[in-house]
Amino acid sequence: MILYDMEKAPNARRVRWFLAEKGITVETRQIDLPSGENLKPEYLAINPRGLIPTLVLDDGTVIDESVSICRYFEEVQPEPNLLGFDAKEKALIDCWQRRAELDGLYAVALAFRNSTPVFANRAVPGVLEPTEQLQAMVERGVMLTRRFFDMLDTRLGESEYVGSDRFTIADITAFITLNFARWIKLSPGEQHTNIARWFEAVAARPASKA
Amino acid sequence: MILYDMEKAPNARRVRWFLAEKGITVETRQIDLPSGENLKPEYLAINPRGLIPTLVLDDGTVIDESVSICRYFEEVQPEPNLLGFDAKEKALIDCWQRRAELDGLYAVALAFRNSTPVFANRAVPGVLEPTEQLQAMVERGVMLTRRFFDMLDTRLGESEYVGSDRFTIADITAFITLNFARWIKLSPGEQHTNIARWFEAVAARPASKA
Repeated sequence: MILYDMEKAPNARRVRWFLAEKGITVETRQIDLPSGENLKPEYLAINPRGLIPTLVLDDGTVIDESVSICRYFEEVQPEPNLLGFDAKEKALIDCWQRRAELDGLYAVALAFRNSTPVFANRAVPGVLEPTEQLQAMVERGVMLTRRFFDMLDTRLGESEYVGSDRFTIADITAFITLNFARWIKLSPGEQHTNIARWFEAVAARPASKA
Repeated sequence: MILYDMEKAPNARRVRWFLAEKGITVETRQIDLPSGENLKPEYLAINPRGLIPTLVLDDGTVIDESVSICRYFEEVQPEPNLLGFDAKEKALIDCWQRRAELDGLYAVALAFRNSTPVFANRAVPGVLEPTEQLQAMVERGVMLTRRFFDMLDTRLGESEYVGSDRFTIADITAFITLNFARWIKLSPGEQHTNIARWFEAVAARPASKA
């Protein structure tokens, strides 16, 4: 089993953190995104979209979506549980994982990919055709990220963790979104006291360094 | 239990189809998206993002992401299985569900929301701040949708169904994406013979009319 990984990439970090929480070690190969190694024929033969991370099982099966890779390991090694125990908890954790991803991580990525020089003409991840960077998308990404901070703070005023009353995959996605947001120079404000309380608790987990 | 629904909305249809495959009936309330009923205080009190569908359980729990609602019902009533049996199948179906959604449905939605007059200043779904429609996003959505058709056809040349060798949630998302694409006047081409074979088989399922 091989995990194609890149140290700094937010999606790759989601998987490494998930594995660290479970104490699972997997052989990894580093792929350099900024230089475009992910778009070279060798890697495209493994993942035609050129996205990272990708997990290749011993039988050759390719699992190429971060959350799906986590789902695989949750099934293979259920403890500690990170995706929920029963129908209701599984659905709620999935809801909040998706919100953190779709409303948070994607918003930051939108601003980041449309503004960072290294991604000129590669504004849309996983798309091989040239895609121009657009200032309007930077502004939209910033607006959506700020909105996500507000939503996350409200949630963390009602719940100790993002997806449940305990640490789950939703916290991994939300925490990585906040770290990623620093790349576009955005952070929660002083008014987001619930985020501050939660951020400190999550940052203290050893697996957060994975 | 109440499902907030809208007959024509692609995401709402995903859930109705999933329920119909399992033979589950849920009380529904119709919310009218084009007139903005989803943005009125009554609905925002249930779903602050103003998105449809939303499932409210008898204990008041709100599940407001389509795929998470499906996940809830898969746990409550596992048969017929639509999300996978073992670790590998679950991960692969999840991968393809996500591809169909992120690379397909979202691409069509990008073009649709940025071009349809009724969504002027509501280009980003689930965002209450005004978001201007942008021609560049229509073009990007069209490019990504065409790319999705090619990817889907390649997949269906290797596999009878999208996520597995049998009908699963990934087929629901992909099929609804193709129907939704007609709203922006895009359809697979004559070269996409694998899509044509699969589309006919899926369209014949009684639950596809849900």
